[in-house]
Amino acid sequence: MSHKTTAILLISCPDQKGLVAAIADFLYQHNANILHADQHQDAELGLFLMRVEWDLQGFDLDLVDFNTAFAPIATRFQMQWRLASSGSKPRLAIFVSRYDHCLADLLYRYQAGELNCNIPIIISNHTDTKWLADAYGIPFQHVSIDKNNKADAEATQLAILRHHHIDFIVLARYMQVLSSDFIRHYPSRIINIHHSFLPAFHGAKPYHRAFERGVKLIGATSHYVTETLDDGPIIEQDVARISHRDDLDDLIRRGADLEKIVLSRAVRWHIENRVLLYANKTVVFD
Amino acid sequence: MSHKTTAILLISCPDQKGLVAAIADFLYQHNANILHADQHQDAELGLFLMRVEWDLQGFDLDLVDFNTAFAPIATRFQMQWRLASSGSKPRLAIFVSRYDHCLADLLYRYQAGELNCNIPIIISNHTDTKWLADAYGIPFQHVSIDKNNKADAEATQLAILRHHHIDFIVLARYMQVLSSDFIRHYPSRIINIHHSFLPAFHGAKPYHRAFERGVKLIGATSHYVTETLDDGPIIEQDVARISHRDDLDDLIRRGADLEKIVLSRAVRWHIENRVLLYANKTVVFD
Amino acid sequence: MSHKTTAILLISCPDQKGLVAAIADFLYQHNANILHADQHQDAELGLFLMRVEWDLQGFDLDLVDFNTAFAPIATRFQMQWRLASSGSKPRLAIFVSRYDHCLADLLYRYQAGELNCNIPIIISNHTDTKWLADAYGIPFQHVSIDKNNKADAEATQLAILRHHHIDFIVLARYMQVLSSDFIRHYPSRIINIHHSFLPAFHGAKPYHRAFERGVKLIGATSHYVTETLDDGPIIEQDVARISHRDDLDDLIRRGADLEKIVLSRAVRWHIENRVLLYANKTVVFD
Amino acid sequence: MSHKTTAILLISCPDQKGLVAAIADFLYQHNANILHADQHQDAELGLFLMRVEWDLQGFDLDLVDFNTAFAPIATRFQMQWRLASSGSKPRLAIFVSRYDHCLADLLYRYQAGELNCNIPIIISNHTDTKWLADAYGIPFQHVSIDKNNKADAEATQLAILRHHHIDFIVLARYMQVLSSDFIRHYPSRIINIHHSFLPAFHGAKPYHRAFERGVKLIGATSHYVTETLDDGPIIEQDVARISHRDDLDDLIRRGADLEKIVLSRAVRWHIENRVLLYANKTVVFD
Repeated sequence: MSHKTTAILLISCPDQKGLVAAIADFLYQHNANILHADQHQDAELGLFLMRVEWDLQGFDLDLVDFNTAFAPIATRFQMQWRLASSGSKPRLAIFVSRYDHCLADLLYRYQAGELNCNIPIIISNHTDTKWLADAYGIPFQHVSIDKNNKADAEATQLAILRHHHIDFIVLARYMQVLSSDFIRHYPSRIINIHHSFLPAFHGAKPYHRAFERGVKLIGATSHYVTETLDDGPIIEQDVARISHRDDLDDLIRRGADLEKIVLSRAVRWHIENRVLLYANKTVVFD
Repeated sequence: MSHKTTAILLISCPDQKGLVAAIADFLYQHNANILHADQHQDAELGLFLMRVEWDLQGFDLDLVDFNTAFAPIATRFQMQWRLASSGSKPRLAIFVSRYDHCLADLLYRYQAGELNCNIPIIISNHTDTKWLADAYGIPFQHVSIDKNNKADAEATQLAILRHHHIDFIVLARYMQVLSSDFIRHYPSRIINIHHSFLPAFHGAKPYHRAFERGVKLIGATSHYVTETLDDGPIIEQDVARISHRDDLDDLIRRGADLEKIVLSRAVRWHIENRVLLYANKTVVFD
Repeated sequence: MSHKTTAILLISCPDQKGLVAAIADFLYQHNANILHADQHQDAELGLFLMRVEWDLQGFDLDLVDFNTAFAPIATRFQMQWRLASSGSKPRLAIFVSRYDHCLADLLYRYQAGELNCNIPIIISNHTDTKWLADAYGIPFQHVSIDKNNKADAEATQLAILRHHHIDFIVLARYMQVLSSDFIRHYPSRIINIHHSFLPAFHGAKPYHRAFERGVKLIGATSHYVTETLDDGPIIEQDVARISHRDDLDDLIRRGADLEKIVLSRAVRWHIENRVLLYANKTVVFD
Repeated sequence: MSHKTTAILLISCPDQKGLVAAIADFLYQHNANILHADQHQDAELGLFLMRVEWDLQGFDLDLVDFNTAFAPIATRFQMQWRLASSGSKPRLAIFVSRYDHCLADLLYRYQAGELNCNIPIIISNHTDTKWLADAYGIPFQHVSIDKNNKADAEATQLAILRHHHIDFIVLARYMQVLSSDFIRHYPSRIINIHHSFLPAFHGAKPYHRAFERGVKLIGATSHYVTETLDDGPIIEQDVARISHRDDLDDLIRRGADLEKIVLSRAVRWHIENRVLLYANKTVVFD
């Protein structure tokens, strides 16, 4: 809820001595007022990850010149890095089918100012959720999908996404499996919510299978979509206790609350550039 | 911590009208002072499960005559049933290997009066935990196991169990897989602790695999041992949140706390006759 | 999500032998197909509490005749009792001020069919949330309140409630303290959400005080409103872990999610006649 | 479980530009291999807090010379700072009364290598727990306390603590209130476990009061002892869900598990120099 405009620098590189000193000194030389700095070292992989956020007020380097100014350090330490600013909102497309609880939750949070993004379009293979899009004033586009038109439908979806300059996609209980080709257009930029505690019950009908297996907790998992189903880097998970008093409908109802919370956290962290990826895992600097 | 001597009746039968009336009337006729009564209906399977516990003071039926007196009702409703009394403590054998945290926890709780059982013997394929057995004054027997003597070792173990009139077994991080033959001697009477949130990461090295997969919560599961590895009815599960700041050693350390809590709950519930089995699941009347 | 029409009988009385037998026999005589039965004994107070729910299909007693038929048993055991039916939806009025997250959550759940009630009116001392009422098609009435018109405003509110035959009220972050006189019109029928883990931080600005005190978890509490502020019987509570990384705005944002979940559970349980009151506490048969 | 010898630098100072650059550069100049670095800024108070841990292997500054070398930076930024090394174990005295669950838990963890400290003495106003001290081979001293000898007893305790060169004290359910004078000898170095979710139910008999109030969760809080009872900086808290099925004995039993976990976390974090104090709060760099 800060009203400051900030810059966020995300770095991933081999761990080496002098790294933090070089970065901190660079920012200090340009009069950065650092608000948050988090770092993580993976000892086993010899990897260094960092997120640093500073107030742009007083920072004496124009962001368009950042690349040039930072390049020597980045080269010296073999960094993979990315600069973001809270001033430029990423553009989000939400995909949804019939279940509308995650969509309703995201739209409420968006309207309440919790999600610092723009949502230019909602895409659905059904029309059931159009009323929600209307209530929140978000354009809604119906792209119907059946066994025979899948490739065409994805082509249509991709065209819509391009038209709206979409930066990332949220699958808010979207019940279609995306093709590898589609996923390659948005690598590490499609967030899914799966209604189980992955890797338990990946694939179809997780609540049914959880009920049958007699687990004592149900879960939900938000992850980036990769070409292997339900196998992408996990951003967030949570669970809720159930008992024999809960039947399958109770699991589905209670799971819906988990899904909303877990997905909305993942989306917010992604928007706020808090998620770093490595080795099919995430580091979340929350 | 109640010092009353109580009887516990556990019933499982097809759901029918008049069931509760018949049972409640029977107990009332014999002047039972009911302390707890729990029931569960599985609508899908048409199954009725009940646990009722009453104070034996004032109950006008000797427990040795219960069978005869209750038989007409049991027959009429096709009940599977079992009577237990808090006055007769079940006899528990603990199996352990090298990790001693679950053993230490169980022994402390036993000594503190939390577990209403007798523990006549601890059996281990190592001698590392003998000091704990000694500290709590429990007999300890070392039965070494290697690739070539497994059948013999199990025969030795079974002889020890018979000798001590063991009612049920707890595998407190016992790192050997029991044979089907062994398991058939104690059906639904061997409790294991698995160091993951089953069915995720069944089998070997669950913490390593959880770490690799990048999950955001780790878990532990207590279950009855069946012939399929890590697939028996789940009694209890719990999870703990982890983050990128936790390395593999942290997972193992934090998981140990989960394992202790989850296993000790399951053991206590088993001892207090709170666990009913059906359809490879448990109902826990806690 | 069951589509059966059911009856629910709620009983509170001194604990006595023969109680369950009498009730179960009564229901059996009238051919009730019992779906759920829960009971609780408070040993210290010698109190017996019960909730029993049965399918009305096949039940041979008209609910209008229940009172007469059940009276002998009720008298014999000095019961306080109440009969409800899932077929008659209670009428709920929501009071709200400016914070709209609980209102939005309740309306979404209502629309989704999670809350088996009617909501004929939303009353607010502000107009900020009117758009939400409109989006869900619920009548909205603005009753402004200031220091000088409080009694008049409450009289207006009571008139609106009477006009709509309101059964119970939910204060969805309603920021006005209700007078004792108002509360006496709806005894044990006003549900509030307080944004702390009561009894910690009762009264004003709980998140500010939680932040100052440096607690490691924040909470939310749903309770029935009584004449002593934040002191009524607690229906539900939950907490979320926070850390030094969370500033006051984070506490408020994360607390909002707790408030939604905790309030909606309490409202659902109240609607489903799962909450029994005694000794300024609740028993929730969930 | 790392077997490296590390140095830990803890810093607290007014937030200023150039801080991190100066510290990181200092460590780099001395060839420090940084393992963990965490920092926190309190925007409201303008405060900067940091914990940095590095491998002593390769570090070219002897720790006895650190003070002199670091002084210019410390002075320039008005730092309060402290240097610790994993190589020098702090000396812990445990105070206990009759309840032994926290003591048993700490001793087990100590023996298992989870707590990187020495425990030269256990002091108790009772003799009930002597068997545990004996089992783990820790000296035990009985200092009896009654209404009339309190000052003398504390003098005796202080003499014992001095004799054993005690660095910090853990009150493992020690049921005596320490005098202000005693506390002043170990400022921010006495850790208590309180059996409630503070600030709820501070003072005596918290489980009884929680039971009476009808809360739905019980808690435990570990905090540094200050002169105001149960009001010191909170290090860790946790809660467990209870229901009407739990009587007072259940609360006490389940609370004991919370107390063990919460206290042991706080003690470990204190030992590992993860806890920083400011404004009657803690920052835990875990």
